Amino acid sequence: MTSQAASPVSGASLATGQRSLGDPSVRFPLWPPLTAGCPVTSTESVSYPVEVDYAYDKVPAGLFTTAPGQPRGHERWAPLLPPLHAPGLGEGGTPLVSLDEGVWIKDESRNPTWSHKDRINRVTVSAAVGAGAEGIVVASSGNHGASAAAYAARAGLRCVVIGSAGTPPAVDAFLRAYGAVVLPVPESARWPLLRRIVERFGYHPVSNVTPTHTGHAFGPEGYKTLAYEIFTELGVPAAVFLPTGYGELLFGVWKGFAELFALGLADRVPRMYSCEPSAGGPLAAALRDGIPATRVPTGATAAYAISSSVGGYRGVVAVRESGGGALLVSDAEMDAARAELARAGLWTELSAAAGLAGFRRRGDAALDGPVVCVSTSSGFKDRDLLSAEGSAELDPEDWAEVERRIRG
Amino acid sequence: MTSQAASPVSGASLATGQRSLGDPSVRFPLWPPLTAGCPVTSTESVSYPVEVDYAYDKVPAGLFTTAPGQPRGHERWAPLLPPLHAPGLGEGGTPLVSLDEGVWIKDESRNPTWSHKDRINRVTVSAAVGAGAEGIVVASSGNHGASAAAYAARAGLRCVVIGSAGTPPAVDAFLRAYGAVVLPVPESARWPLLRRIVERFGYHPVSNVTPTHTGHAFGPEGYKTLAYEIFTELGVPAAVFLPTGYGELLFGVWKGFAELFALGLADRVPRMYSCEPSAGGPLAAALRDGIPATRVPTGATAAYAISSSVGGYRGVVAVRESGGGALLVSDAEMDAARAELARAGLWTELSAAAGLAGFRRRGDAALDGPVVCVSTSSGFKDRDLLSAEGSAELDPEDWAEVERRIRG
Repeated sequence: MTSQAASPVSGASLATGQRSLGDPSVRFPLWPPLTAGCPVTSTESVSYPVEVDYAYDKVPAGLFTTAPGQPRGHERWAPLLPPLHAPGLGEGGTPLVSLDEGVWIKDESRNPTWSHKDRINRVTVSAAVGAGAEGIVVASSGNHGASAAAYAARAGLRCVVIGSAGTPPAVDAFLRAYGAVVLPVPESARWPLLRRIVERFGYHPVSNVTPTHTGHAFGPEGYKTLAYEIFTELGVPAAVFLPTGYGELLFGVWKGFAELFALGLADRVPRMYSCEPSAGGPLAAALRDGIPATRVPTGATAAYAISSSVGGYRGVVAVRESGGGALLVSDAEMDAARAELARAGLWTELSAAAGLAGFRRRGDAALDGPVVCVSTSSGFKDRDLLSAEGSAELDPEDWAEVERRIRG
Repeated sequence: MTSQAASPVSGASLATGQRSLGDPSVRFPLWPPLTAGCPVTSTESVSYPVEVDYAYDKVPAGLFTTAPGQPRGHERWAPLLPPLHAPGLGEGGTPLVSLDEGVWIKDESRNPTWSHKDRINRVTVSAAVGAGAEGIVVASSGNHGASAAAYAARAGLRCVVIGSAGTPPAVDAFLRAYGAVVLPVPESARWPLLRRIVERFGYHPVSNVTPTHTGHAFGPEGYKTLAYEIFTELGVPAAVFLPTGYGELLFGVWKGFAELFALGLADRVPRMYSCEPSAGGPLAAALRDGIPATRVPTGATAAYAISSSVGGYRGVVAVRESGGGALLVSDAEMDAARAELARAGLWTELSAAAGLAGFRRRGDAALDGPVVCVSTSSGFKDRDLLSAEGSAELDPEDWAEVERRIRG
């Protein structure tokens, strides 16, 4: 696979090491990537995530102002990402689509595997390549698994996807098209199996492996690019609303804006709003209770991509540091937001509409500037399509029926 | 819906009128758009398409060199498109993904409805708005219909989709999400019903309505943007290989390069290669027989999106004028190309792989420069997903089976 060379303007990665999100004075070298959170600051009850640190004083002038030679791909932002050892697929560079006056939709379905996860997996697979692994293993048969499978294929790595028994055939076909091996097992067997595959095969885990969510140390850095893109097109919005599962997207987007502020390129950071299904809401619960992360009981929701019973500290940091908030949205609210987006020409996965649903719930009080709602993936990703009923056949000679259907 | 204003650099449309593709001296005013081909040059056996002409002497300097303020959307190319009366969805700006040394894939699945059709439907729906129609009608339940439905919704127009009885529920859900009314009728009833809806409701037709294909006069102009993007990123490739149904994409991309040549910005035009399913091939037949357009018998093919029994003159012009060729690819060849693309991290619809399949069939003899294969849409668009079998469930305690599946 041909790797796309770093742009001469952008240059190489300025990543210097890893550090604990729980205590930023706790530092580690850049390699190997810590895929199970911080071993020093984590406790019995809270696993603290790790993030990547950079030589910010060396950021090239013009990184955010020079027009890119290649308009798509993480290469443009290489200095502020971990090393891009894996070849890209032209990820990112997604459009801001106007919904209302001052309300923008960042449409992540325009990515290589039609979800925002491509931004994280260019980075996780790069970590796997850098760590010398022959393959990756991922415990997600949804957007994350498919994206990881695509980047693994492009990098020439093996990919094992640990899925659930109920994975629909279309989703299975999606994963296997990239050459992934799909192992459907019961829910309780997923983590033990993932760990065993890591131990026995040396495959690099790109899913969370800790009791409260930590995720991959490098991966969420990929989400910063979303912030960089918004910044170069729109400046700093008043607020960003994001569908929230584990909070990696929320954290990455916040961190991108926080870096711009620290670099003196932006005069503020947007308020970050997590939008979780009201059937769960571990981040809202953690913020409410003033704790770093927690587990909650979860009821039924069709927003399967963000239905998390356990949260992580990343989301707490993003909301707290930005002066944002944690919103809970019902399935009915997400459904209404999805319908609103579709009427505007954007057909989104139900979970993807949680961002707009959160904004509609909160309203625009005390927001002095544009608002961005991130829409994470395409309507094709929803699981209820297979049970949908089609339109009833029509007798073309029955003009009264034709008129009735058209006039609605 | 908020319309995105034309960029100050780009300016307004320079379209001056319409003219026959059969005889460029036969001219018409720009309005109304001729949706049934040229009424003057068309004969009993051949319907000639109409194209749009422009005041090329007024093209703004810097149109192809100035970095766009908004990186996505037809607005960037407004001077060389018909008037953009309908609001956009950030169409185009899709990436060139490297496949091999000197072989690039233009991934059109990154568009608003995940196919190249978005480039044409921003333009057809703009025509409908400009013509004062309250709605559009389209005889396609595939990529074209869904794209038209999305742009109609965004523009506040009604949309009627005339489909076939076998439309899968997922496809129907896709169309209706945008508010389209779907009318499934037998194949032979489609055109008469479309014409009757045009007459009775005044809806603007955005599908072909003539015996040999002419299509919408304005629509295919939208495909020129594909050429402009390739040119600004890569220059003029040696050849472009495109999945070919009616030939509108092929024509539009050729015309874009032909304009760049006529404007003195490019020193040549790429060889254009149509890639049709070997089960049909009306364009290959017309070129072989030296006639403007023809109908051929069609056998079975899973490449449903480009399975056409009838061709149009647009494709003949593109291949002839560029010194290209007409290739036929079997389902097996398209399947092999699709697998090659998926191993590179791009999961495409079977029809979308026809471009690469054509290049693999022809080889790179006498091609002195990079080659671009256009990939038109995502694997989600294929119809065989619903009948696919999933991966067999696994007993996680059966480690021998785990190893067997992973080692392949």
